[in-house]
Amino acid sequence: MNELVFIGLGLNDEKGVSLKGLEETKTADSVFMELYTSFMPDFSLQHFEILCGKKVQVVSRRELEEENGTLILEAAKKGKAAFLIPGDPFIATTHVTLRIEAEKHGIKTRIIHGASIISAIISLSGLHNYKFGKTVTVPFPENFSETPYNVVVQNKKFGLHTLCLLDLKANEKHFLSINQAIVMLLEVEQKNKKGVVTPDTAAVGIARAGSYYPTLKADFVKNLVHYDFGEPPYSLILPGDMHFMEAESLIAFAGAPAEFRSLAK
Amino acid sequence: MNELVFIGLGLNDEKGVSLKGLEETKTADSVFMELYTSFMPDFSLQHFEILCGKKVQVVSRRELEEENGTLILEAAKKGKAAFLIPGDPFIATTHVTLRIEAEKHGIKTRIIHGASIISAIISLSGLHNYKFGKTVTVPFPENFSETPYNVVVQNKKFGLHTLCLLDLKANEKHFLSINQAIVMLLEVEQKNKKGVVTPDTAAVGIARAGSYYPTLKADFVKNLVHYDFGEPPYSLILPGDMHFMEAESLIAFAGAPAEFRSLAK
Repeated sequence: MNELVFIGLGLNDEKGVSLKGLEETKTADSVFMELYTSFMPDFSLQHFEILCGKKVQVVSRRELEEENGTLILEAAKKGKAAFLIPGDPFIATTHVTLRIEAEKHGIKTRIIHGASIISAIISLSGLHNYKFGKTVTVPFPENFSETPYNVVVQNKKFGLHTLCLLDLKANEKHFLSINQAIVMLLEVEQKNKKGVVTPDTAAVGIARAGSYYPTLKADFVKNLVHYDFGEPPYSLILPGDMHFMEAESLIAFAGAPAEFRSLAK
Repeated sequence: MNELVFIGLGLNDEKGVSLKGLEETKTADSVFMELYTSFMPDFSLQHFEILCGKKVQVVSRRELEEENGTLILEAAKKGKAAFLIPGDPFIATTHVTLRIEAEKHGIKTRIIHGASIISAIISLSGLHNYKFGKTVTVPFPENFSETPYNVVVQNKKFGLHTLCLLDLKANEKHFLSINQAIVMLLEVEQKNKKGVVTPDTAAVGIARAGSYYPTLKADFVKNLVHYDFGEPPYSLILPGDMHFMEAESLIAFAGAPAEFRSLAK
């Protein structure tokens, strides 16, 4: 059967994949993987190949984006191709084009979901899913943009939390740090003065979500900007209005100072 | 070691769990599971017990919420307890209290993430993650509320998509259907007349996300309200402004009519 199965690798390491994701890999005629849209700190390709008993072909950004994933489409025209992607396959929008191309070529596509950073961050922090507004990515300083600040402003107007994903170049091991992201938001604040990201604003930094030892730290921005989160990858949450259970969660799970209780509404 | 590991079961069936989730279950001294916060249509407890080689104790809403999960805390005081939860463990906020209680009792807690409905719906639809606003749950008609409509209004004002989770009573096999949810939104529209959920509004219904055969159907509300989505569970998306790639995705993956192209901005 001609088909292309997109499989989520989940988070952090080669054991983040689901049992059915691994099974689909075992029964595929060809197996591809990309490792550039996210960073999985403890992932070993060699261990993964042992788990699935197959050779895995790692594809580059160039092969996927400039050459439109032709090598994957060609494999799927000949049989069952599996394409493994960090997290849940289409949370990075990169691969949607490949899926549309496949369907246009009459190749059936399916998705095996994996744990994604967007649900992991919510789970780890104890903040409530239905209180998050729009998500935003904070770019590297060389691509400076006021958009992340404006998204925080817009979300906070409705009392909503903002999940900030921090830009990365996984292949080059280059990561925007939580400290840098905060500094960029403070800079925009100084110009716009809307009072949404000040030294006294509450925030939550998260490193290595999905690993055995994630680092979570909730504190006021003035303290968080100096905090050492250890190894990447990184995320940042700017909470909106907090329910008292959310404040309690940040105190219990993220070492927030007791003053967070007085922020709850 | 005294610890309580919250493990996500992922979606649909017993093979949605990650390899590390299964490993943690195998090394636990006691294993608990709840199956009421979400519905996993193809889940077999018996098959799961074979996979992990252990007896699993299924806990009820009463034991968890009224009796504060005392039986799980007691087990975690004696050794390593694993608690398996559909999806990603804390996307339903139900279990946050148990985690806080455990930490207060000096029991170390960890989370093994699983695929969640919130990322699966985004992946399946091809809509862009960073264009979703606040998520909302549509309640059963007997708990009628204007909140879902108001959330759609607020999100659309900023061009954002709304993910509507539809209420369910998993134990009683009672599910709010996509058709019912649309009817409720149309009723509020008739009163409020903001023009955000009319017969000519685009929407996307999704059934059985994470299963081998999910049903996705994008269409105008007047058609979707009669569409047969088959078996539960169900979700509904009310898209805001669509990028042309998002319209193409809905045409390719969700059978949207070609007119969706003209909706893209």
